[in-house]
Amino acid sequence: MTDAFEKDPLVLFMPSGKRGRFPVGTPVLEAARQLGVYVESVCGGRATCGRCQVEVQEGNFAKHGITSSNDHISPVGPKEERYDRVRGLPEGRRLSCSATIQGDLVIDVPQDTVVNAQVVRKAASDRVIERNAAVQLCYVEVEQPDMHKPLGDLDRLKAVLEKDWGWKDLLIAPHLIPQIQSILRKGEWGVTAAIHRDMDSSRPFIVGLWPGLKNEAYGIACDIGSTTIAMHLVSLLSGRIVGSSGASNPQIRFGEDLMSRVSYVMMNPDGREAMTKAVREAVNGLIGKVCEEGGVDRHDILDSVFVANPIMHHLFLGIDPTELGQAPFALAVSGALQYWAYDVEIDVNRGARLYMLPCIAGHVGADAAGATLSEGPYRQDKMMLLVDVGTNAEIVLGNSQRVVAASSPTGPAFEGAEISCGQRAAPGAIERVRIDPVTLEPKYRVIGVDKWSDEEGFEEDAAKIGVTGICGSAIIEVVAEMYLSGVISEDGVVDGAMAEKSHRIIANGRTFSYLLRDGEPKITVTQNDIRAIQLAKAALYAGIKLLMEKQAVDKVDTIRFAGAFGSFIDPKYAMVLGLIPDCELAEVKAVGNAAGTGALMALLNRDHRREIEATVKKIEKIETALEPHFQQLFIDAMAMPNKVDPFPELAKVVTLPERKVITAGGDEGGGRRRRRERG
Amino acid sequence: MTDAFEKDPLVLFMPSGKRGRFPVGTPVLEAARQLGVYVESVCGGRATCGRCQVEVQEGNFAKHGITSSNDHISPVGPKEERYDRVRGLPEGRRLSCSATIQGDLVIDVPQDTVVNAQVVRKAASDRVIERNAAVQLCYVEVEQPDMHKPLGDLDRLKAVLEKDWGWKDLLIAPHLIPQIQSILRKGEWGVTAAIHRDMDSSRPFIVGLWPGLKNEAYGIACDIGSTTIAMHLVSLLSGRIVGSSGASNPQIRFGEDLMSRVSYVMMNPDGREAMTKAVREAVNGLIGKVCEEGGVDRHDILDSVFVANPIMHHLFLGIDPTELGQAPFALAVSGALQYWAYDVEIDVNRGARLYMLPCIAGHVGADAAGATLSEGPYRQDKMMLLVDVGTNAEIVLGNSQRVVAASSPTGPAFEGAEISCGQRAAPGAIERVRIDPVTLEPKYRVIGVDKWSDEEGFEEDAAKIGVTGICGSAIIEVVAEMYLSGVISEDGVVDGAMAEKSHRIIANGRTFSYLLRDGEPKITVTQNDIRAIQLAKAALYAGIKLLMEKQAVDKVDTIRFAGAFGSFIDPKYAMVLGLIPDCELAEVKAVGNAAGTGALMALLNRDHRREIEATVKKIEKIETALEPHFQQLFIDAMAMPNKVDPFPELAKVVTLPERKVITAGGDEGGGRRRRRERG
Repeated sequence: MTDAFEKDPLVLFMPSGKRGRFPVGTPVLEAARQLGVYVESVCGGRATCGRCQVEVQEGNFAKHGITSSNDHISPVGPKEERYDRVRGLPEGRRLSCSATIQGDLVIDVPQDTVVNAQVVRKAASDRVIERNAAVQLCYVEVEQPDMHKPLGDLDRLKAVLEKDWGWKDLLIAPHLIPQIQSILRKGEWGVTAAIHRDMDSSRPFIVGLWPGLKNEAYGIACDIGSTTIAMHLVSLLSGRIVGSSGASNPQIRFGEDLMSRVSYVMMNPDGREAMTKAVREAVNGLIGKVCEEGGVDRHDILDSVFVANPIMHHLFLGIDPTELGQAPFALAVSGALQYWAYDVEIDVNRGARLYMLPCIAGHVGADAAGATLSEGPYRQDKMMLLVDVGTNAEIVLGNSQRVVAASSPTGPAFEGAEISCGQRAAPGAIERVRIDPVTLEPKYRVIGVDKWSDEEGFEEDAAKIGVTGICGSAIIEVVAEMYLSGVISEDGVVDGAMAEKSHRIIANGRTFSYLLRDGEPKITVTQNDIRAIQLAKAALYAGIKLLMEKQAVDKVDTIRFAGAFGSFIDPKYAMVLGLIPDCELAEVKAVGNAAGTGALMALLNRDHRREIEATVKKIEKIETALEPHFQQLFIDAMAMPNKVDPFPELAKVVTLPERKVITAGGDEGGGRRRRRERG
Repeated sequence: MTDAFEKDPLVLFMPSGKRGRFPVGTPVLEAARQLGVYVESVCGGRATCGRCQVEVQEGNFAKHGITSSNDHISPVGPKEERYDRVRGLPEGRRLSCSATIQGDLVIDVPQDTVVNAQVVRKAASDRVIERNAAVQLCYVEVEQPDMHKPLGDLDRLKAVLEKDWGWKDLLIAPHLIPQIQSILRKGEWGVTAAIHRDMDSSRPFIVGLWPGLKNEAYGIACDIGSTTIAMHLVSLLSGRIVGSSGASNPQIRFGEDLMSRVSYVMMNPDGREAMTKAVREAVNGLIGKVCEEGGVDRHDILDSVFVANPIMHHLFLGIDPTELGQAPFALAVSGALQYWAYDVEIDVNRGARLYMLPCIAGHVGADAAGATLSEGPYRQDKMMLLVDVGTNAEIVLGNSQRVVAASSPTGPAFEGAEISCGQRAAPGAIERVRIDPVTLEPKYRVIGVDKWSDEEGFEEDAAKIGVTGICGSAIIEVVAEMYLSGVISEDGVVDGAMAEKSHRIIANGRTFSYLLRDGEPKITVTQNDIRAIQLAKAALYAGIKLLMEKQAVDKVDTIRFAGAFGSFIDPKYAMVLGLIPDCELAEVKAVGNAAGTGALMALLNRDHRREIEATVKKIEKIETALEPHFQQLFIDAMAMPNKVDPFPELAKVVTLPERKVITAGGDEGGGRRRRRERG
């Protein structure tokens, strides 16, 4: 561009919109590089790898002042013809290393070579996420040994990598040193080096070496959850996801929830080691699964990014999590970490690296950092609430000005634990519930059955599976519906007086239950179940409210529910129950495994690693246990929807029962008294 | 120093001679740091490690304009008193972290804290080598975890290492991550970190971590020779050598010399692996030996530097040496290398590093680089010849202007191989020989016997050991003495006519031998032995001569003989025989294991690593096989002393026989003819 004149052709690259003038004859790839447009190339312009494909958009782009035409690019030459003959070039595609600029052009860099559709999560700011993997493949032709210049094979390899690709001060993974001679000779001095340019050193590293042209490299992005491990396998060259899968975390056999696993470590001398081994084996197994799905050799995996909650993070890395089970909840490491994948016994290419996102705080882990990277509250101006509900809810609230984060001890009720008929989301679990406000009769849906319970043929279908319990999403809905139909009061007490109106209300010693399904087993919602949900939602809401107070807002602009729980929950019921603050329902979105998406982003673009490292440092960490106000917020949040908020947005979509004054703490006795008064 | 005034006290540090003015009250350690005077400190000024001891030199140092007095330093304070009580402070010593400047001072930094006497090899330029180890121990007190600032243990450790010691962007060895929690708590938040600041990344690395104050760290410097592995164990904090030992290279069982080991690799599929395993085991065994000698735990070894000839270098690092056995003698790696010692199975501290000096060329290895670093031809102006004789002679010639290097295929004759009665230097081997020029009677010395063979009681003493052969140094001497006494001619033929004069000259079919010792066994020097020595010395001398031609000199100023052969050889005989060019005898020095000394220098001062890396890049590598002239030089050098040189210096110390014209190639037939003419 330095020697570009006004009369030089104007070239516009799409979708990035970057543009510049280049002399006639400039290769399109060279123009892209000068403009910082990311176009992959492995063969270094030899027209053999085919990674640098582009398309000319023909037409008059008046807005840009460009009339683009296929006449403005050099005709297909012998190199492209050869590539087309040998490997096939799709109609209209050109190899940008060989095609040269002859006039004004609009060049389309095809989507699969810019960024993967699943990864381009256009954030509120409409930012396009460009791909910029840490690993790059570089084909070179190494000078043969020469007695006049007795440089070693490695030293000549480094020299040509600097000459052809500009890599200075290259280092090499030690395990490759004994292999260099045979690889160079097998490739007849033509080899492909994998360069990792995001090592924790500032120098680029040769992490892989193959004879001849190596035209593919993969990475994995992995979220290690307490219950489930989720993984993507992705091409580092095209950004294409070639495999996605999940597996149960085998640590479950040591303890269902996080705290029971910490207890296991405290009680058993080999507990930490056993759990570390279990999770690493599961990760290796899952790698096998995604590789089979994608038809990929696991030794072609050259990079990996992991996220996990703090306890999974520690156990995966072989760190004792005991400190996280007690105040002051001290993390052994909070910053981002880099390893050789081999260091933590991950069986992929010996030169593959492992990047672990930073943890935000003792209970707000690298998974929350991944979700934060994915949803990007700090990248936009709206006040965004990002919630990931598990045994602890990880809560992030903020915008481009300021981000605060906390965790709140919701306990396992939302996951179906501590609920009398609760179970995990699996076939046979009730997942949706509606209660008729007049008859108090329910209808529900069961995972694995296509019909609602009041539709014809439901019982026949349900019989095949067996209806066995209620999963997390249905617990929210049934409690919310009980409130909306007046079965429970704002303070969460089942109105025993209703037992006269409906056989669904059943006396249970001193309390009452709601009979959701009369079958084998009977599925009921007990007063204790409602209390457990009340406690969980109060904890979550109090945490959110605390962060809202820190941000001095009484309303959020947008809500993102991350995680499995968030995927199944109906935002309306979450709001009825008071899990989340008032917000336009259209702005409440389930974003699935946002933590995993964040890992994928960090895998495909190393700039995102620096971005989340810097962001996590800036996030203000709020420890609920240190906030004297938190207890009051918790008590206030016991009511349904919530004592403290008017919820105008919710009123637009559901009819809320008349509000009543409840006593702080909403004890059962008081509830009964009011019920009797009402009755 | 920025706020120093003319009236501030003047402080001079010895032996470095660095000086500066500092405000009254400045701690002496701080003044040293500001001037770049290396004074060790582990405890960071807490007066507990005692590493920063200095002494005040009292007196009027007129030359420097300083009157130094103990009144000009602060009196011994409570911190130094406590240290003296607990650990003892030698008379006159002060802790420079606590003692402050009160007036003009001459401060002596005691030798054992500057540099070790064995290491300060004052080169011709009188350069003082300062110590600057790659590993530094730093005691810090880490902030305890705090829920308000949920930084991880590692992150707080890094923060205090930056605050107290200035280490920025610290990385950590992965194996330490799971240990951080327990080490910090065991040390009650006071820990010592070992910082490696010469990693191949540009960032400093935490490579070790101990609870409380850790006040010692060690390193090893190792030279892996084909026959012998030599090792020093040295304190990285004081520079003191605490153990030095050697062991046979167990690869000898795969082949006596280098080429037979390469052949073994070529013939045996597991040959390379077996030899790598053998040498690594021997190194680990030797580490045990030096640690026992020094009373050191091998896990306190945190750094290591290795040198080796190219084939040992490759085998030690697990690289196939086959390419080095054939043209173009391609090294797999020529540049310097860094590893975790663990990567090459060296059993020391898990965080210890390994640095391997660069190789100069296919037959001029890291050992030659080590010798070059030790003797420093490039650091001075005299034309220095540095020779390390083995199966190949590694030859370096140069000065501060230009350095050239080559190897010459001397073969194993100098080591006693291919000599009829040759043997390695061991008890029972003849090591010195003199021949009476009139009677032709010899006298000799035997390793393990204190007397010359003509002294009384020699035979009694010799009988206890048994006289078994001739070692390398004696071969040189006996051939030189045979020449000086006229037993052999300039062309190396034993004069059969002398058989009439002396029973020592024995007919041997068509040739004659010299009977050195008539015993059991008979020790003779045959015509074939002389031919072998002639070929070896011609190869060596031709190599030297080639380099002298490249440097355009016909005389060298100084000669350094490195290696075991060099240690035993008498320079006079080397010159008589024509192994080395003319040079003042006082300037011919044996420098022992200079390669190992170079390794030690690189261990104790990381600047020497950069120095030798840069030097090796600049050295001009001469490949004798590519020099058409080399063959003629070789033929010319077959004569004794040499056809081509007048050797005026030699004439000052020995009487040379009258020179005769010999035919090129000096064939035996021609020799006999002339002998007959003479007879």
